[in-house]
This record gives sequence, structure tokens and C-alpha cells, in this order.
Amino acid sequence: MEKHIRFDSGENALLLLDQRLLPLREEYVPCRTTDDVVAALRNMVVRGAPAIGVTAAWGCVLALLEAGDGPDWRDRLDALLHRLAEARPTAVNLRWAVDRMRRVWRNAGDMDPDLLVRVWRAEAAAVQREDIAANKTLGRFGAACIQDGDTIMTHCNAGALATAGYGTALGVIRAAWEEGKKISVIANETRPFLQGARLTAYELQADGIPVAVACDNACGLLMRRGMVQCVVVGADRIAANGDTANKIGTYSVALLAREHGIPFFVAAPLSTIDTTLDDGSAIPIEQRPAREVTHMGDTRLTPDGVPVYNFAFDVTPAALITGIITEQGVLHAPYTASIRGAFAARKG
Amino acid sequence: MEKHIRFDSGENALLLLDQRLLPLREEYVPCRTTDDVVAALRNMVVRGAPAIGVTAAWGCVLALLEAGDGPDWRDRLDALLHRLAEARPTAVNLRWAVDRMRRVWRNAGDMDPDLLVRVWRAEAAAVQREDIAANKTLGRFGAACIQDGDTIMTHCNAGALATAGYGTALGVIRAAWEEGKKISVIANETRPFLQGARLTAYELQADGIPVAVACDNACGLLMRRGMVQCVVVGADRIAANGDTANKIGTYSVALLAREHGIPFFVAAPLSTIDTTLDDGSAIPIEQRPAREVTHMGDTRLTPDGVPVYNFAFDVTPAALITGIITEQGVLHAPYTASIRGAFAARKG
Repeated sequence: MEKHIRFDSGENALLLLDQRLLPLREEYVPCRTTDDVVAALRNMVVRGAPAIGVTAAWGCVLALLEAGDGPDWRDRLDALLHRLAEARPTAVNLRWAVDRMRRVWRNAGDMDPDLLVRVWRAEAAAVQREDIAANKTLGRFGAACIQDGDTIMTHCNAGALATAGYGTALGVIRAAWEEGKKISVIANETRPFLQGARLTAYELQADGIPVAVACDNACGLLMRRGMVQCVVVGADRIAANGDTANKIGTYSVALLAREHGIPFFVAAPLSTIDTTLDDGSAIPIEQRPAREVTHMGDTRLTPDGVPVYNFAFDVTPAALITGIITEQGVLHAPYTASIRGAFAARKG
Repeated sequence: MEKHIRFDSGENALLLLDQRLLPLREEYVPCRTTDDVVAALRNMVVRGAPAIGVTAAWGCVLALLEAGDGPDWRDRLDALLHRLAEARPTAVNLRWAVDRMRRVWRNAGDMDPDLLVRVWRAEAAAVQREDIAANKTLGRFGAACIQDGDTIMTHCNAGALATAGYGTALGVIRAAWEEGKKISVIANETRPFLQGARLTAYELQADGIPVAVACDNACGLLMRRGMVQCVVVGADRIAANGDTANKIGTYSVALLAREHGIPFFVAAPLSTIDTTLDDGSAIPIEQRPAREVTHMGDTRLTPDGVPVYNFAFDVTPAALITGIITEQGVLHAPYTASIRGAFAARKG
């Protein structure tokens, strides 16, 4: 599943495995324009903060090709990059990736578009490669938090499909499994998009890691019955104090974990940490279309005319988080200091 | 919706509004035998503890007709009643209703089946009538717990469809609305059967009470944003100490409510209280078919071969409950004493 985001240089097309159809069908959506990429992000053909970042990096390449080489190509490109960066609001990796490509452009000086395409292709490939490397490194750090015999609960999908490959939360689980720990996983189904029921179950089954699915509202019972020893989730954006935005429902899982004395870990690369925000209250929370809740496929679930709430993320306060597993090690409270330290260590 | 459980004396058939099809279609399932009733209960044509009790009372009448008037009719009836009482394990109202009918039978002495049918029809009608009366009384007591302007969160469906009519949690909401309080409701969708999204939304919309639906995992965010002032839920079985079994996920809602300082009420008639159990640990928790989680209609959601957990209920510890709203008033902690007092007051 490392190939679920794939740039075809011959066709100048970004091929995205359509995650809306999994696990039933494996089909790729080809993106040839910035709008194609924006639509794919908005419609969740691809989702998961690091995967959004990688997709956006390749989206910059498409934007550059689309901007052409006429006299105004810089302005056109700037506008397209702006549109791309706004495709979804919560995952900071989107903005992070576009900013990284912009920085390369700025540093490249007065490069013509033909040359910049080659530089950006290399940079996008680097974003993708580095994400996998970060996942594998944080996976190894995280595996040390998992005990032999643990059942690990995870929410949403923070796996290969949510990243360039390997995964953050599922990277930790994969690393523990590769170390020979006999673990099993409970995947919360994660309404309304069912990332857990569809994607996490699919990935772990493919790897032969034991996995069971439960509805989101079963977490309390499963924990109370002693069926969960550890929780590991991904993140869409982490503030400087450790407050973590992740898929809606993560906060409830974290609160239940504290109530039951179960360690609760967030696994994310440093690219998911937004040090410009002091705390989680400033993280924008996306509201998605009502239809995701009111319908399942073409079948209406709710009565016509009844409004729905469809917030896509919530914020888990840092106080509920046992540790944040990054490629610079496992960070602990106080997070403001440990996060600052991790960024300093990376530069150093 | 007081007519969703209806006995047709001419046809000797129990007509049940098929709650699996709501809100899309209103169709009735006719039950003519004990097995029909058992199947309707197991398949959730009708659900909700008090509605299960009413259905079981009418099911006893059908069992008696089925037992005939041959020499062994008593033994046949006894076996059929036993089967009926075992249809579902968690809601105590099922056993309560069958026990009540048995008591009438015992007290009636050596009555022949023809006469007993008439007595039991009257008794089943009384069970149904008394349930509505209890709901209306507890609704009035509960309405005093609701403030003008409140948004009330409810989980599952504890409405007219879950009772003989009017509802327990929704009875409280209806009573507050009828008193002129400007309230609105957030119905948790309640996976996997979607009682909230389908049934609660349908009932409240029909009554013109403002209602919005949210996925179960949105509770934390909605509470944190100050969008919920009060929680009212129903119950499937309440132990002598106040521990309350209700639809899976209720426990998480209760824990979140405590975290956010939001009052959390359980609304249930005394027939839902099982004083033979000291606490909630002895309440049997039904596990339902995997298909409810793995499929939506005919569409498979999870990968083939991945197991699922489908516990139908969880237990909310009494310590998380602000009050238990009954037809004898609102009970408060310590519940062992207040529950005992409520039963004594009813007899007195």
C-alpha cells in the first residue's frame, strides 16, 4: 500500500487509490489539474494528514504544469497553490507541504518553469520518501510502548493509507508486530466515513495482524471489560502544548482511557505539529457535508428535513495524552518543552 | 404513534410497526404465534424495554391461543411463555411482563383457557395503558429537570416507539415542550441500528420538536462547545443501586457529561428496575449478530473475514447519574434507598 499515491511522470498525472471504495474495490482516480487534486482531497479519495501532505506536494507539481510558461506563470502558480492549500482546513500537513514547496521555489531563485518542475518532482518524491522514513522511525519508538499480548484500540485510520506508507498509529502497531509481539487490534469503525471499519481493518488484515471492528460507541464497554490495554491514534494537527486534533471521537476515547487507566498515545511525525498555535482552541475544525451522515451510499438513514452535525475532528487535551510518538522519540508532558526539544534536536 | 403495537382481536394477531424500515416506510408485521413474536423481538421489529414488555404481554395471549385447550394446554403454555421470556436477555421488562401475566394466571385459579384469554387480553391492555400513563407521569416529573432554552442530548430511542406510547426520555422532552419550554434535541445516531438517526429524529420531527442528528462520536465535541445543557436517556434494566444498562454508548455519554458538568438523567418506569440485582455487574449484556455492524442493508462495510464486536448495551455506573426519573418522582443518590422508597410509595 506504499503505492496508493503515485505520480506518473509520463502522463503527468497523480494516481490516487480511491479510499471511498475500499475494501470492496481498488480503483485509482487520476488527477491532472489542481482542481482535480482539490476535489480528491475534499471528497476524501485520499485522507489522513500525512497522505494529504504528500498529495499536496504532488499537487504543486500539477499546479506548476497547469500554470504554463507564459509571462504570468508565477502569479497563476501562486493562485493555484493558494487554492490547493485551502482544500481542507484541519490537517496542518496540507499547508506544511505547500509551504515547503514554496520555500524550494523561493530558494531556487529565478528558475524557469521547466527546471522548477524537475526540482519540485524531486522535492515531492522526497516528501513522500521522508514520510515513510519518519513513520518507520516513530514506529520503532512507539513499539517500545506496546507490551507483548496487548490489545490496542485505534480510532479512524492512521495507517499506510493515511500516510505515504506504513502509517503512524498503524506504523507503531506494525513495528510492534514485526518485533514479534503477539498483539491484536480493535478498530473503531469511525462514523461517518468508516475509516476504521473499512481501511484500518483492510490494512491490518492484509498484513495478517489480528483485528476486530467495533462501533465507536462500544469503546466504554470494551475498556470496562478489560479488553483494551493501550490506545494509539494518529493526529491531524498538534498544537505547541500537545493538544491534538484528530478524527471526531478521539476525545471520547481519550477520556474513557483515562477513566480506565489505559495509556493513550498519539503517533505523528513532526510535520503534524503546528508550533504557531499555543493550544488546541485555535485549530480550525472542518464541518463536512450532511450527506455523509444522512445517507449510506444511496440509502437515506435520517428523516428528510432533519439537520445533522458533521464536525470531522475534535481536540483531545494534552492532559489526556500519555505520550506523543514522533520520529524524534516519544514526547511526554510538559509538551510545550518536549515539542520544542524535538524540533531543536531535528535541526541540531 | 401510540398504535405501533396493536392487537387485532378479530384476527387474533399482534400487529407491530416494523421499526427496521422507519423512517422510510411504515409497514406492520403481523404476529400470530409465539415464534412470530420471539422473531419480531429478536430481529428488532420492535425494541425498547417498555415496548418489549408490552409486546411480550400480547405475546402471552398468542401463546395461550396457540396452547389450545387439549389436556396438556398448561404445560404447552408454560413452555411457550418460557421461550417468549428468553427472546432477549437485557431488557428486564420482557421477563417482568411475562411474570405479571403468569401471576394473573396463578391467581385466577383453575380457569379454562377460553376464560383466561379474556382475562389476559384485559391484562395486556392494562400493561399497555399503564405504560403510557407511567410515561406521562414521569414526563411531568422530568420536565422540571429541563430549563427553558436547553438543548437536550439523547441516545438511542426512548420514545413512543420504545414504549407503549409517549416515551420515557422522549416523554420528558415532550412534557417539557408541552409546558412551552423552548428546547431542542440532539439525537445521537446510535450505531449500528441507528435508533437515534431513524426513530428519535422521526418521532420528534413528527411532533415539531427541533431535532438534529449527530454521529455517536461527536458527543465530546458538542459538549465541549457548550451545545448540550442536559442529557436524558432511557434504560433497559436498572439495578437496585441505580447502575443502568442502556443502549451501547450511553456510558461514554455519561462520562463526557460528568467531565463537562452537564446533568445526566435516566428516565424509566419502575418496571425497568430489577431490584433482584445488587448492582449492574450482573446485568446480562446481549451480543447481537455481526451483520448489523458489517453491513448496511446489502452493502458490506468491513472486509470479509474481519470479526466484529456487537454488544448491544453497556452499564452506566450510578455515580454518573444525576437522577432517575420515574413515575414515582425523580430519584437521587443514594439510589439503593431512593429506589426502595419509590417501590414502597407505589405499594403504599
